[in-house]
Amino acid sequence: MHHATRRAALRASLRALELDALLVTNLLNVRYLTGFTGSNAALLVHAESDEGTAFCTDGRYLTQAAGQVPDLERVVDRPCDAALLKRAGGLRRIGFESHDVTVDGLSALEAAAGGAALVRAPGLVERLRVVKDDAEVEALRMACAAADRALAGLLEHGGLRPGRTEREIARELENRMLDHGAAGPSFESIVAAGAHSAVPHHRPTDAVVRDGDLVKLDFGALVDGYHSDMTRTVVVGRAADWQRDLYELVAAAQAAGRAALAPGTGLAAVDAAARDVIDAAGYGEQFLHGLGHGVGLQIHEAPALSKAGDGTLLPGMAVTVEPGVYLAGKGGVRIEDTLVVREGAPELLTLTTKELVVV
Amino acid sequence: MHHATRRAALRASLRALELDALLVTNLLNVRYLTGFTGSNAALLVHAESDEGTAFCTDGRYLTQAAGQVPDLERVVDRPCDAALLKRAGGLRRIGFESHDVTVDGLSALEAAAGGAALVRAPGLVERLRVVKDDAEVEALRMACAAADRALAGLLEHGGLRPGRTEREIARELENRMLDHGAAGPSFESIVAAGAHSAVPHHRPTDAVVRDGDLVKLDFGALVDGYHSDMTRTVVVGRAADWQRDLYELVAAAQAAGRAALAPGTGLAAVDAAARDVIDAAGYGEQFLHGLGHGVGLQIHEAPALSKAGDGTLLPGMAVTVEPGVYLAGKGGVRIEDTLVVREGAPELLTLTTKELVVV
Repeated sequence: MHHATRRAALRASLRALELDALLVTNLLNVRYLTGFTGSNAALLVHAESDEGTAFCTDGRYLTQAAGQVPDLERVVDRPCDAALLKRAGGLRRIGFESHDVTVDGLSALEAAAGGAALVRAPGLVERLRVVKDDAEVEALRMACAAADRALAGLLEHGGLRPGRTEREIARELENRMLDHGAAGPSFESIVAAGAHSAVPHHRPTDAVVRDGDLVKLDFGALVDGYHSDMTRTVVVGRAADWQRDLYELVAAAQAAGRAALAPGTGLAAVDAAARDVIDAAGYGEQFLHGLGHGVGLQIHEAPALSKAGDGTLLPGMAVTVEPGVYLAGKGGVRIEDTLVVREGAPELLTLTTKELVVV
Repeated sequence: MHHATRRAALRASLRALELDALLVTNLLNVRYLTGFTGSNAALLVHAESDEGTAFCTDGRYLTQAAGQVPDLERVVDRPCDAALLKRAGGLRRIGFESHDVTVDGLSALEAAAGGAALVRAPGLVERLRVVKDDAEVEALRMACAAADRALAGLLEHGGLRPGRTEREIARELENRMLDHGAAGPSFESIVAAGAHSAVPHHRPTDAVVRDGDLVKLDFGALVDGYHSDMTRTVVVGRAADWQRDLYELVAAAQAAGRAALAPGTGLAAVDAAARDVIDAAGYGEQFLHGLGHGVGLQIHEAPALSKAGDGTLLPGMAVTVEPGVYLAGKGGVRIEDTLVVREGAPELLTLTTKELVVV
């Protein structure tokens, strides 16, 4: 049971903080620790064992909770967080997720906690979540595969032809991801043609693809709650020399970033590995963002691969590597993969070619 | 300017609470008060005028903010909430959205606030948002029209034929809403065929529609940030007598609920108007939820039309009316409109027929 293993890992940090229990209110953290996917729940993780651990949801999710959380005591009540505290007799120090609970929410918890002290305990579950276990990597793998297949289908069926709008292409990509098992896109898809490709986070418009355009596609699939993230930039018609040069520069930077993904490497050093390539070519000012970010139950999560990144890579971290160079008014190239850090070379999850594709 | 008018209305409550300003951190509230649609922003509304009012976002949204918030001082910094407090010299009592700011977030605000006292001020903007102004009703109208047209297209083109899966039908509905100007669905669409129609919040599966099924469709469109919400239940093939009877009962209850929508009526009384019809027919136990809810920038917002509803209707409130009767294992009927409370009769925004449709 992945979830029981995750709860056991959390217990080690509870004991280190001398907490008798942790009240988990962040829904993604509840999902991570139990497998529950409904929209209302809380979890009280006892520091000793699953014996005193209790899960709470409301009546709508009675059947679903029985199926998804068979291994824990289940409470059906509302509001879940206060209900769990009210039943937590005998616990003296209970941690709460102070990065998630609102100021008004804490007042309600204090009223429910009786004699127990509520202790700030931010980010304990998020700290576990940065390293993905096998079940999580498998979900990411399926999410990346759905995106790979969607793009392959789009290209194969001439979906990137001149005259089509960015919006039409984004919709086709998203529909194809659904065809390949995605529950939905993992974020608002970016399809950016021509000069729009120079806008890092362009939203699809009714602008049409024209012959000679760079077209940047940044998109991902959601599978079992896990988010994939991939960017490819293609040329329509015939690639101009400046487009080829720009593409090769970004591809070289991206390869350098991937090559730097090894356990123990500093997060800022990974960013620098790719950024140095772009700086050396004189385009440092046109690389406007960090190199990448963690992905998992959220599309953006720790660790951040950026200049300001603090900390080092660990085996099992899932991250994106996505350098870009943006020439305002002209066009831009970004190339992005989702990978898992491993001893030795990282594991590549997004398998679409990174050779320049001309359609 | 709708946004300036909304800020002026907010000022009245700031002065009543003797606040010098309100720090607005909830993004939907920032959008409501400024029109800004990006993913990172905060707003400090001065109690006196827009002179001392300041908006903050980060560098990604420089151009967008200039276009969407031309009428306020714009600060570009990160994090936005602390940046606004740091510049707020001379203010003594600053309200903050204690229902939105986390416990850790408040610590960061306190460090930035200098000598000013931070005062809990929950729900001030939400209280304004319950009554929709003309611009908001227009967005809701367009969102409802996109949903109406999508359903009309689906039915016209035989989209509800036997053999199709719930999932296929949901996707077609969602694609048709996009064709009619929606930015996306306003929530996860419900398509529930046969016995599934008896599950109030069923998620579409690969189950196929069969001859004689009740099919419940609960869906909506998102336009300019506003959410429509509509449910229709149709019969495939030929309606059995029990299906017709059930449908007529729910339709009568829904008409009674709509007829009760008048300024000054208690929220619980509106719920009771529909519930009494179902109770009288002996199906009170099979009407498992409240009668309706407010809709706007959120799919579920105040006011709640339910037994526990506290307060009365005001002109301009936008609400759903959605009674349902669910016969477990057999089938269920729900009929839902989105309406705006007006002096006299309410304004109906979802215009699809409520006669029983047999396809």
